[in-house]
Amino acid sequence: MFPRGFRCASRNVGLKPSARDLTLFASDVDATAAAVFTRNHFPGAPIILGRETIKGGVLRAIIANSKVSNVATGLRGVEHARRMAAAAAAELGTSPDRVLVSSTGVIGVPLPIEKIEAGVVGMTADLQSDPLVGAEGIMTTDTHPKALSASVGNATITWVAKGSGMIEPNMATMLSYIFTDAAFDASTLDQLLRSAVATTFNRLSVDTDTSTSDTCAILANGLAGTVEASAFLAVLTAGCRRMTETLARDGEGAEHLVRVTVRGALNEGEAQVVAKSIVNSPLVKTMVHGADPNVGRLLMAVGKCFDCTIHPGSTDAWINGFQVVGHGERLPFDDAVVRETLSREVVDLTVELGVGSGDAVAYGCDLTKGYVDENASYYSS
Amino acid sequence: MFPRGFRCASRNVGLKPSARDLTLFASDVDATAAAVFTRNHFPGAPIILGRETIKGGVLRAIIANSKVSNVATGLRGVEHARRMAAAAAAELGTSPDRVLVSSTGVIGVPLPIEKIEAGVVGMTADLQSDPLVGAEGIMTTDTHPKALSASVGNATITWVAKGSGMIEPNMATMLSYIFTDAAFDASTLDQLLRSAVATTFNRLSVDTDTSTSDTCAILANGLAGTVEASAFLAVLTAGCRRMTETLARDGEGAEHLVRVTVRGALNEGEAQVVAKSIVNSPLVKTMVHGADPNVGRLLMAVGKCFDCTIHPGSTDAWINGFQVVGHGERLPFDDAVVRETLSREVVDLTVELGVGSGDAVAYGCDLTKGYVDENASYYSS
Repeated sequence: MFPRGFRCASRNVGLKPSARDLTLFASDVDATAAAVFTRNHFPGAPIILGRETIKGGVLRAIIANSKVSNVATGLRGVEHARRMAAAAAAELGTSPDRVLVSSTGVIGVPLPIEKIEAGVVGMTADLQSDPLVGAEGIMTTDTHPKALSASVGNATITWVAKGSGMIEPNMATMLSYIFTDAAFDASTLDQLLRSAVATTFNRLSVDTDTSTSDTCAILANGLAGTVEASAFLAVLTAGCRRMTETLARDGEGAEHLVRVTVRGALNEGEAQVVAKSIVNSPLVKTMVHGADPNVGRLLMAVGKCFDCTIHPGSTDAWINGFQVVGHGERLPFDDAVVRETLSREVVDLTVELGVGSGDAVAYGCDLTKGYVDENASYYSS
Repeated sequence: MFPRGFRCASRNVGLKPSARDLTLFASDVDATAAAVFTRNHFPGAPIILGRETIKGGVLRAIIANSKVSNVATGLRGVEHARRMAAAAAAELGTSPDRVLVSSTGVIGVPLPIEKIEAGVVGMTADLQSDPLVGAEGIMTTDTHPKALSASVGNATITWVAKGSGMIEPNMATMLSYIFTDAAFDASTLDQLLRSAVATTFNRLSVDTDTSTSDTCAILANGLAGTVEASAFLAVLTAGCRRMTETLARDGEGAEHLVRVTVRGALNEGEAQVVAKSIVNSPLVKTMVHGADPNVGRLLMAVGKCFDCTIHPGSTDAWINGFQVVGHGERLPFDDAVVRETLSREVVDLTVELGVGSGDAVAYGCDLTKGYVDENASYYSS
């Protein structure tokens, strides 16, 4: 369920054979807005335009297509992104600088802008209140549409996201849109978004590969009035965490959500480096996939963080709550029991470094033959 | 063929069911020696001992076992490594501080030291001149033993190595032993080794995972007299490069050697970061596996080097000599032709950054279902 004043629509406009490939999210009134984007040096044309658009701090709509990402397409790509914003603005009766554009899909292919311009005509008539309709229109290799809602005070927050592979956000993530009817000024909204993203979407990695299209935007149309900021941040962060876990679990080919908790690092930054090293290690990921408690791989992944403070003698580790390493040495444990817990859908790996008070959690998934299958045959041109 | 005065032997001593699992390399006379080891914070017991041993700069022998790595085994592990050196020294009639010890295999399992002590007895009688016999005894998931020889001046250099997974050396690599009858003092030998390793073994990555046991050692027994250092370094480096390519090609599950050349980076350090980013990208690795010229993935992997100087407009890229990116945009190219070249055993990816004069080459392999198979079921306890 959307917050007051938000609706969405999606349809097939011919980019994909028959699945929905164009999505429109709209607010009935202008909303204050904030966004974070990928740090990749080759940002897509929509990112280049989006950085300009978001400076205004006001949005009425988001228009997003799947199938073609409009990346590595040069000046023509940016022109296409502008035409896409203008088409949505004309349909909604607003100005192009109040429309955020996203494109996701294959890199290096010209955007079929004519199909999008023709396809967006009449979409206002389709606008309705189920966020999943919008979520479906932005899917690429996702196995299911992703949306969730929560309430805080008198307001509602709704998250809609997509993302499955090429995911290690370092500034934002995939496409992730957040809608609320709470009232905030743009500067406060920006701070709240960055704070929530730092410990959620920025701690997610499916495959270490940072997309050129990552976008996380929030729109607050104020129709529910003011909400206390710290309460809002708590709910915002919890929802971003839940969506992060949902994206990790639906990583390409994934069969498990892997949650890595690192405690007792020198500081939070080093905790994050170690947690990411573990969650990204192909040998840890295949260990989870094989439900094989090969705990040496955990130590290996900790130990390869060359620039972090690691004391082998103070390092402990747990798999799903069972301690498997004490003071840097493998402990005897019931192999069959730990192996059984590794077959759960959610796998928790915990490392205590014992050198400080820095904590961090990272989110990822196992590495499967399904990942290889999907990415060895992904449509390329 | 070994250089003068070097021989080796290997046998099964009961660590593996029947394959050779213990190897002895010996020089007839004392050899000057140098070595580099893993930078992993959890070095195996043999590394802890080896760093002490190599300070003397003199070795007579190397003893190495496969199947159990003697890592994460605490003080008892170091004691076992010392006993292994002593057993080899007794068999050869030298002192334990002239024997380098290596162990490779599963982490966190006690070394079956009694089997090794009993098994080494009588090995001097087996010493013979084929390096492949030694190479076979140190194999783990390698699909074939790896040795090669070259001559320089009056001297010979022989390389023996193993390594297939858990490979991203950052200081040295896997187990890699180099034998020569050239004469060098220990300090010069150390400089030559570090220089050769920097652009070869340190540019290799199978899976980003840095082993806890990496060792690269060189023994120079001087029986061929002096050799001009720069000529020696050239041959030493060429052989290390050839062995690096051999290890990459035999990466776990690999079907292709992937060679990534980055030119025109701000400096050599940034060239190395970008080359490693490409060679380690799961999406680039699966692109090679699928022979699918999805060139956006190349740009993505360049662009995620956040801290490097990247100018999209000056970035060009080639797949096996065919230009696919110009000025940061995907160029039209004959998809079928490029696809056909991607099915070659050796795949060359080249990126020109156009911002400086830093060059680097990195070596890796494709990501296959074979890697997942091998590592989801690797013996764990």
